[in-house]
Order: sequence, then C-alpha cells, then structure tokens
Amino acid sequence: MSIKSFIPVPRTLMGPGPSDVSPQVLSALSRPTIGHLDPLFVGMMDEVKSLLQYAFQTSNPFTIALSAPGSAGMEACFVNLVTPEDTVVVCVNGVFGMRMTENVKRLGAKLVVVEGEWGRAVDPQALEAALKQNPNANFVAFVHAETSTGALSDAKTLCQIAQQHDCLTIVDAVTSLGGVELRVDEWGIDAIYSGSQKCLSCVPGISPVSFSERATKIVQERTTPVPSWFLDQSLVMDYWSGEGKRSYHHTAPVNSLYALHESLLMLKNEGLENSWARHAKQHKALAAGLADLGISYIVPEDERLPQLNSVYIPDGIDDAKVRSYLLEEYNLEIGAGLGKFAGKAWRIGLMGYAARSENVALCLAALKDALSK
Amino acid sequence: MSIKSFIPVPRTLMGPGPSDVSPQVLSALSRPTIGHLDPLFVGMMDEVKSLLQYAFQTSNPFTIALSAPGSAGMEACFVNLVTPEDTVVVCVNGVFGMRMTENVKRLGAKLVVVEGEWGRAVDPQALEAALKQNPNANFVAFVHAETSTGALSDAKTLCQIAQQHDCLTIVDAVTSLGGVELRVDEWGIDAIYSGSQKCLSCVPGISPVSFSERATKIVQERTTPVPSWFLDQSLVMDYWSGEGKRSYHHTAPVNSLYALHESLLMLKNEGLENSWARHAKQHKALAAGLADLGISYIVPEDERLPQLNSVYIPDGIDDAKVRSYLLEEYNLEIGAGLGKFAGKAWRIGLMGYAARSENVALCLAALKDALSK
Repeated sequence: MSIKSFIPVPRTLMGPGPSDVSPQVLSALSRPTIGHLDPLFVGMMDEVKSLLQYAFQTSNPFTIALSAPGSAGMEACFVNLVTPEDTVVVCVNGVFGMRMTENVKRLGAKLVVVEGEWGRAVDPQALEAALKQNPNANFVAFVHAETSTGALSDAKTLCQIAQQHDCLTIVDAVTSLGGVELRVDEWGIDAIYSGSQKCLSCVPGISPVSFSERATKIVQERTTPVPSWFLDQSLVMDYWSGEGKRSYHHTAPVNSLYALHESLLMLKNEGLENSWARHAKQHKALAAGLADLGISYIVPEDERLPQLNSVYIPDGIDDAKVRSYLLEEYNLEIGAGLGKFAGKAWRIGLMGYAARSENVALCLAALKDALSK
Repeated sequence: MSIKSFIPVPRTLMGPGPSDVSPQVLSALSRPTIGHLDPLFVGMMDEVKSLLQYAFQTSNPFTIALSAPGSAGMEACFVNLVTPEDTVVVCVNGVFGMRMTENVKRLGAKLVVVEGEWGRAVDPQALEAALKQNPNANFVAFVHAETSTGALSDAKTLCQIAQQHDCLTIVDAVTSLGGVELRVDEWGIDAIYSGSQKCLSCVPGISPVSFSERATKIVQERTTPVPSWFLDQSLVMDYWSGEGKRSYHHTAPVNSLYALHESLLMLKNEGLENSWARHAKQHKALAAGLADLGISYIVPEDERLPQLNSVYIPDGIDDAKVRSYLLEEYNLEIGAGLGKFAGKAWRIGLMGYAARSENVALCLAALKDALSK
C-alpha cells in the first residue's frame, strides 16, 4: 500500500455530527503543542472551565472537558454516580437513551425503562408513573436532544418530576448544548455530558461534563472504587481544580482543548441566547424549503430539534444513492437514519457553525437536484 | 474573566510527553473536518491501521487507534481480556506498572505483583519465580518503557517466560513505540497499547492498540459483557474492520486521526530502524553532555531508555526553580520526577521529533546556564 499525506476534500457537514468546524477553530487547533502541566496551559484550562460553565449555565465547580468522546462522558456520569445498589429510571425514545440503559446494565444497577415513542419527546407523565411504581428509584436519566430521531424533550419538566421523587438526574446534552435552551442550575440537573462536535462546532473527541454539588459529593464520598480508572472523576478533579496542585492523571489532549477553548469563546462572544435564536431561525428556513420539496418531518413541530432535522425519505427515493450524490456532486454530507429509522430517514444537521444561511441554501438546492435525478 | 483567543508561546518539549509535534503534523491536524463515516475518512483509517501495523511490527487485524489517551488504551486491554476469574501477574517497577495493578484490582481479578526496583528493568527471574508460585496465572502484564523512571525492560525475554507458562501478555508501549526496538508478532505480545504523544510526536489524545488473534478470540467469545461500554472492543472492531459495514460506535476524533496518520507516515518514510537509531544517537550525545555537567543517570547504562533520560537533580539545586528558569528563559520544558522520584529527578525526553541535534544542544546549553545561577 503506497500511502501519501491525507488531504481531505472540504465538505459541508450537515449530518448528525461532526458539524462544520470554523477556520478560526481549526487555526486554534493547530497552534504549537505545549505541555499539559505548563502554567500557560493550566491557565487556559481555567478559562475552558469558565466558558463551559457559561455554556451549561451553571456555577458547578466540577465542570470539565473530558478527554474522550461524548459516549465516554456518558459512561463517566454513570460509573461515578451509580452503584449496583441503585435504581435508575431511564427514559428511552431513541438510540442514545438505549445506550444509557446499556451503561446501567453493565454496572449491575437496577434498571427501569420508560419506553417512549421514537421521534417524540419523552412523556413526562410516563416518567411520573414509573417513579410512582418504583419508589426506590434514586436516579432519572434521559436524553435532552435525541440525535437519532431529532426530538427535543422538556428537560426542565423531567427534572422537576425527578426532584419531586428525590432522584438525581443524569442528562445527555450531546446535541443540545449551544443549540437550544439549556439551564443546568435553574433546572437542577445533577450530571450532564455533551460532545465537542455538535453545536459547539469543535473537532470531535472531547466531552464537556458537569456535576452538581450533590453529584460531586457522591463521587467524593463513595466507599467502593469507580470500576473505571480512566473515568474515575475523583482522580480527574484534582487536575481540573483551580485550587491546590494539578495532580497528573493522564496527558490532556492539548490541541483539541485549544480548539474547544476557541469554539466556546465564539459561543460566548455570540451570546448563548443569540446562538439558540440563530439555530431556530435557520431551522425555520430549512423547514420551509423542505416543505416546498414535499419532504415531511418525523417529529411533531413543537417537539423538533432545530439543530437536527429528521425527515422521511420520500417514497421511491434511493437513500444511499441520494446521499452519495450529495457528497460526490456537492461535497455535502447529510446523515442517514439510525436505529429504527435506518433506511427510512435522513438527518439534516444545522449545528453550530453549520447553522448559516449559505448552508441552508446549499442543502435545499442540492436536495432538489438530487431528488429530480 | 475577560477571555481572549489562546495563543501559546512555542516551547521546546523535552519532558516525558507530550513531545514536540512537527509543523507537518500540526498542518495535517488542521485540515477541514470531514464526517467519520465519509468514504474518504474510512479509506484513511485503513491506512492508519496499516501504518500502525508497521509501527508495531504486527499483522494483527485488530490494530486500531483508540479514541482516547494511553491510559484508556491500557484500560481497554484489561477490561476486554481480564475477568474476575483470571489471575494477572503484573511486574511493577514504576508508576505505570502500578496503574496496571489498579486496573486489575478494579476488575476484581486475582492480582500477583512482581515488585521490582524503581529505576531498573523488570527482573525476568523474578517473573519466572512468580509464575512458578502461581501456576493458575493466565496473564502477564508489564511496562516496556517505564516513563516514570526511564528504564527499558527486556520485553522479548519477559514474553518468552510468559509463554512458557501459558500466559497471555499485556504490554505498555506508551513510551517505547517508535523509539526503541519493539516487535509485537516476533515477541508474541497479545495485547499492546501506546500513546500518540511520545515517540510518534503526534498530538496527545489517541492510543494505538493491537490485539493478537488469541486476544481477539477472547474478546469475541466472552460470555459476560465488558464492564465498559465505551471501551468494549467487540463493538469497536466493526467500525475499524475493512470488511463489512462500518458500524457506528462513537464519533471518531477525525482531526487527531489526520495527525496520527501524518506522524505514522513520517515514521514509515524514515524507517523504524532508522528512527530507533536516531533516538539512540541523540541519547548518546545528551548523555555525554550531561556527564560533562556532572549530572548522573538513575538507570544503569544498559537498561536506559534513549528517549527518556531520568537523572538525579544535583545536590543543592532547587528543582522547581531550575525548571521554571528553563521554561521562562529558554521556552524549554523538561519533566519533573514522578512517584518515588518526585523532587529527586528530572526526566529529559528525546522523543520522536524532539530527538534532534538542535534540541540536545539547546537542552545542554540551557541546563548549564540554569545550574550556574
């Protein structure tokens, strides 16, 4: 095999992630690597923490960027907080809710599943009923923005119900962070994880995570070791702490954190509410154009994610052929269906830097062309 | 807090890692992000696999770049292969051998520790004795290149002994890969992990991992689920497989893999043996200069790692003051001691792109100046 340097063809990324990364973030990414214990780098980490606190709308001291993708962030929340003695109610309305159940099972905790319809928000009444039936439950877990279906759940209400039943909440915000309203402290979320490559428009590979004081206390006071050494946040806390020494745990992904810093700074400079509004605006433009093309949404209008538009593939249209055509002819990536929607849906992302008028225009024009072939 | 874009001061990285990253690799890193299921990206992954097979000197089909740092690569080897029914002999001669024991303990397997002297290679006779005393042992684990002490162990001999006792081997090659001789197939290593940020001179955050056929079979045939979903390699195998479909497991760290591809290509173009020879040559030059400065090594000459020179801090010298001076005056990073050597040693790295004459010259001149202050 004769191998040369890899020069990717630039694509417009309008799938379920990774999303388009701005030149500004790519530029930050490629700055010279410095040591992960260098005082300059440690200072930058403090800024990343502060910027993440803003993005999550939290003052949680334990707010970090985990050195691995969102699925590791998910696992970090479960393995640090949940023990085999616990009962976890997981709301499942798509692939990523199912992953949460996988985490609970592998931990050996008691699992209660609230089955929801794919393509719909989680039903708060179903959660309420499950909690009444399971008075021993002490955790509620759900996905805020289901990337597999494009449904947005009412995290505020779900958290309220969990709190009324004295449960801690674990929330998947992989696709929601930066794209739709999310208020960790106000809503009382105890553990939350996200990904760098969705509405933050940073490169993939990093997972923002935040634990409430109550969750942090559980980690600090647990008497059995966390099953995973790599994800043991009691060891990571020291490294991310502003106080005391930065204990070495593992080598931080220095350059990826430069990029995250830059993408979070862009979000802060734009303003969170402005970013939410921009996603909503571009979503409306896309939805109007899709309607003109006769394409219909899977999710009811008031439960839709602006940043992830899942639509039915029109009758008689070849899924793979259209996506290949878009990629080859327009360098445009849209996403395939996942799980129950594999082969039946497309997922069109408008995440972060991709939520721009030029992307919406390109996508609609290219789709129109592809569907006419 | 008023936050601006982070512009790091370029440093010369001669600590225990991350090592200097070449402009060529940084350039690859910052190429436009494309989708992790894009055919172009999938093709690049095949090349990464082939280049990793070369670097590891293996034809193992299961040879991948894990989407997290070396400590996650370590955990992946243990959680996929070792169950509570197993007995694991771990050779400990530094911090990273201790971490292996931590993995075994958290898995609930039986642990047998072969305690070795810090700053020395693992003693093959001690391993042999431990295996005779523990005939039920089925795994032997050791660190090829102890990053905490600078000692190189005789992996070939240790593997031979393990095989004679019918044990599978798990080997930490975080600091050895690319810097010293390492032959996975010839030596019969069953599971090996490394890091991107040492002698490969790639950015931190990726862990090359390879499993022998025997190890792969264990993963495929195990009847209990791997405790970690994120590190479950039976799920990852499908994504990295050249055959069949690329099943989605998590979003690959696209840009970091561009960088790994480029750094592995540089290694291939140089030639593995040439790279080993370059590290040895620069080590000799550094060692001669350090002797002139009256600085002595911790590790006996024939057990030293060329790429990580651990030396005693001369009497009366202030550790932190010297390292700060080097960083502030020369933008030169050398490493502090770790574990038993904290405050007593410096660790001077000559890893990958950092193993160059200009780095050796700078380090010696700067150290001479610092010691004269």
